[in-house]
Amino acid sequence: MEDFIMFLLFATVICLPTTMIPEVLGGNVLVFPHGGSHWVNMRVLIEELHSRGHNVTVVRAADSWYISQTSPHYKSITLDVAVGANDTFFHHFVTEVVKIKRHQGNAWSRFGLDSELKNNFYELHRKICEAIVHMFENEDLMESFQDSKFDIVLTDPANGGGVLLAHRLGLPLVFNARWTVHGEAHFAVAPSPLSYVPLPPSELSDKMNFIERVKNLLFYIMRMHLYKQVVGPHYSAVVSRYFDQDTDYFSLFQAADLWLMRVDFAFEFPRPTMPNVVYMGGFQCKPAKPLPEHLEEFVQSSGEHGVIIMSLGTLIAELPQDLADQIAAAFAKMPQKVIWRYKGAKPATLGNNTLLVDWMPQNDLLGHPAIKLFVSHGGTNGIYEAIYHAVPIVGIPLVFDQADNLSRLRAKGVAKFLDISELDSKIFQKAIEEVLNEPLYALNMQRLSRLHRDAPIKPMDSALFWIEFVMRHKGAAHLRTESYRLPWYSYHSVDVLLFLIAVVFLVLLGFVVLVWSCFRLCVKRKEKSD
Amino acid sequence: MEDFIMFLLFATVICLPTTMIPEVLGGNVLVFPHGGSHWVNMRVLIEELHSRGHNVTVVRAADSWYISQTSPHYKSITLDVAVGANDTFFHHFVTEVVKIKRHQGNAWSRFGLDSELKNNFYELHRKICEAIVHMFENEDLMESFQDSKFDIVLTDPANGGGVLLAHRLGLPLVFNARWTVHGEAHFAVAPSPLSYVPLPPSELSDKMNFIERVKNLLFYIMRMHLYKQVVGPHYSAVVSRYFDQDTDYFSLFQAADLWLMRVDFAFEFPRPTMPNVVYMGGFQCKPAKPLPEHLEEFVQSSGEHGVIIMSLGTLIAELPQDLADQIAAAFAKMPQKVIWRYKGAKPATLGNNTLLVDWMPQNDLLGHPAIKLFVSHGGTNGIYEAIYHAVPIVGIPLVFDQADNLSRLRAKGVAKFLDISELDSKIFQKAIEEVLNEPLYALNMQRLSRLHRDAPIKPMDSALFWIEFVMRHKGAAHLRTESYRLPWYSYHSVDVLLFLIAVVFLVLLGFVVLVWSCFRLCVKRKEKSD
Repeated sequence: MEDFIMFLLFATVICLPTTMIPEVLGGNVLVFPHGGSHWVNMRVLIEELHSRGHNVTVVRAADSWYISQTSPHYKSITLDVAVGANDTFFHHFVTEVVKIKRHQGNAWSRFGLDSELKNNFYELHRKICEAIVHMFENEDLMESFQDSKFDIVLTDPANGGGVLLAHRLGLPLVFNARWTVHGEAHFAVAPSPLSYVPLPPSELSDKMNFIERVKNLLFYIMRMHLYKQVVGPHYSAVVSRYFDQDTDYFSLFQAADLWLMRVDFAFEFPRPTMPNVVYMGGFQCKPAKPLPEHLEEFVQSSGEHGVIIMSLGTLIAELPQDLADQIAAAFAKMPQKVIWRYKGAKPATLGNNTLLVDWMPQNDLLGHPAIKLFVSHGGTNGIYEAIYHAVPIVGIPLVFDQADNLSRLRAKGVAKFLDISELDSKIFQKAIEEVLNEPLYALNMQRLSRLHRDAPIKPMDSALFWIEFVMRHKGAAHLRTESYRLPWYSYHSVDVLLFLIAVVFLVLLGFVVLVWSCFRLCVKRKEKSD
Repeated sequence: MEDFIMFLLFATVICLPTTMIPEVLGGNVLVFPHGGSHWVNMRVLIEELHSRGHNVTVVRAADSWYISQTSPHYKSITLDVAVGANDTFFHHFVTEVVKIKRHQGNAWSRFGLDSELKNNFYELHRKICEAIVHMFENEDLMESFQDSKFDIVLTDPANGGGVLLAHRLGLPLVFNARWTVHGEAHFAVAPSPLSYVPLPPSELSDKMNFIERVKNLLFYIMRMHLYKQVVGPHYSAVVSRYFDQDTDYFSLFQAADLWLMRVDFAFEFPRPTMPNVVYMGGFQCKPAKPLPEHLEEFVQSSGEHGVIIMSLGTLIAELPQDLADQIAAAFAKMPQKVIWRYKGAKPATLGNNTLLVDWMPQNDLLGHPAIKLFVSHGGTNGIYEAIYHAVPIVGIPLVFDQADNLSRLRAKGVAKFLDISELDSKIFQKAIEEVLNEPLYALNMQRLSRLHRDAPIKPMDSALFWIEFVMRHKGAAHLRTESYRLPWYSYHSVDVLLFLIAVVFLVLLGFVVLVWSCFRLCVKRKEKSD
């Protein structure tokens, strides 16, 4: 009882809203989103903004099927421009990567596929820039933007459209970020010493040996080169067409008022950050809702052994048949029940304990006490849900940052991580049994979950507070350094160091000349007196 | 009404304590404080910890009169060691500095005084280290520390005692910090590019020209040299006596779990930070309480002109008589009423509108709507109170970081800043009239105050939450980088860069040798065929 009273006291003290100054109620938010899984995150934020009385306007391309034209949560402005169904390419890409990995495809075929990916990115950003030019040239549209009196532009910096739009309209800029067009978002805003800050998706940790540090630096150089080749030129062309001569595209990024990072240090390695970076990793996680009746029944039937759930995300529709058979065979041998989100043909080896589903309420399942293990591809959303609900993971990474994400979890002792190219029934079964039977995985995950949940305010509330902060104060200039205005040699004090070295050198030289002159004088005098 | 409902909704959403996991109730906190104004800050925190049910034990020196032996808020452990009445020296130091400045004392006398200060610091830290050795050698005391099952060590890193004690006891370490023994606290924990992070108390801003950047770097080099000469050796000796061969004293600092910084970016220039740095600048500020009757009467008698308050802090008891007369004469000419905290002989020029007081309820006065201006020496506590209550400042810095603090406020357009060596009645009056009559000062200060107050939780609540977080989780390792374990050349990737340059050089060399060999071969063949 005493504990409970202390708890109430604690809650009251911490939560008294005495320092809050909510001036902006019902603000106007202009959203320039990014497609695919990025939109899933943005939509969560938009729905919350809507529920708090803000008016949200979303800019979308004519062919965007992810971002629907009508919604109860936002008004949309559809540009008369097609950006291309990027997701179709990604489906193809992931399926091909898995095929190549499974059949030990040669490096050449992988290189070809990566070139395709590079070209796809090149085309995507080219088209986005076309869309931006289309907007900027449409005077009626730009005027209507001005008339709408937006308070902020909210954007995902995975493309640069929102950045350019905000600068054009002179509006404060808020990022919903994990990636920018230049790589992991922190690298664009905070100092990132490559000696202990691993560049995702390098799969390195924050404790690197010499060779790993060399790898990290090379990885960084490659990444920068890729950005300059594939992404940068399109945006720079728009910048030089519409803005001042001395406006640099990358600086516009760094001048953002607020970075809402989909990151939490329960998951991410600790690293330098900035005052205008707000962490909202896991902002989409919620307590579990009750399961649909048929699922609840199935879960309950598992008894003491509990349930394993498996999902490899939305990008891969079906696995190669041999792989699906191997996985199903492993599941069939287990005493647990299994719920497997799978759209392909029913594997021949499927056991009675395994339920194939087209879709599952992943968050509600992860929050169910009967769930013992999550077999995942390592997408960030699923990982945060697993951390939130404290469910350990067996990871089968497919593409992009998934292996990197899982390597972080492995470093924390909460996940095992399998290579799809070597995966068979035995390896899969062994990994699952290890994570189920070795109590450390569950204990570590519970600890991680406690660390993640133990925050003074929830990540979503923090995100909303800071978005509204930027609206109330028309920016957050006092939290943002302007260091990006310095050329690199000034930023790193190279000019100052060279100057000081020159001064020291000149002083020494002066001293040597003086001593030498004195010496010569003495010698001369001696010669004279001799 | 609708706004009010929205406000309530806002407050409820933001403040639901759903993610808080208060496990530690009634923790055991061991405090190793620092004297002087540092203790004022620590006491505020201790009183709050006590009121939340924690047991606090404070370690104090036998001759510490600032930190009293008995208190309703903490238990004290008095070491049988005298550390020296440091404050007596500081009183002398400040008085002498003012004298030298007023009478255009020569550089030599100032140099002498600064040497005294340096010696005083040397002696202070030597004695603190004596006290630490005394503790470590007292087996009963160390055993009683172990038996007390402390959860954390809370310390002010302005001395290194708490750091060594925490390491010896193997306890999590929490800093209540603005300064460490090495300088401004951020410089010990976060990357601090000297190109845009001014080193206090250099009075530089975050926008420096080339010469200022040279100054900043030289200032940093001097500061490091001073640390190595004056402070470091004492602590390093203790470390090598009691800890492993490879334990480095500075690393113990960097390994702290949590840095509660007495800093807010409404006041401080934005700069890189770290995940385990929590900002609690202004944590001591509170809404004003009603004034004592005689003060309220005096304040009310000011009518529309309002009141000016003046305090130059606790370190200076009285000003040189000529200076006091100049200040009093300026006050006498003003239509405002003045409350002046002053202990010296009554100035001859004192006007009827000026009330001299021994002590004043500064926070309550600053929060009174009739107060128009604060004449201050620029101590941090007073500055945060002025920001909290939105009162613009005329600053008369005396010593230490005061000029630097005021220069930050001047950069934000909320303060004027006077040089005590040139101060006379006219200059003083002009400065006060400018700040009173130019509405921008008040407007800027109101804006600053709004920025400072507009936070999702109050600074003190944030500090308490994170202290208890460290108790609950027995540290905060996941928020702390271990980059300090790297040697400097690895930290800055110098080794990796040299390696890559060597590789490139060798490849080029190989290529040149190859080409040269081919060339020679061709020439030989030609010679043969000729």
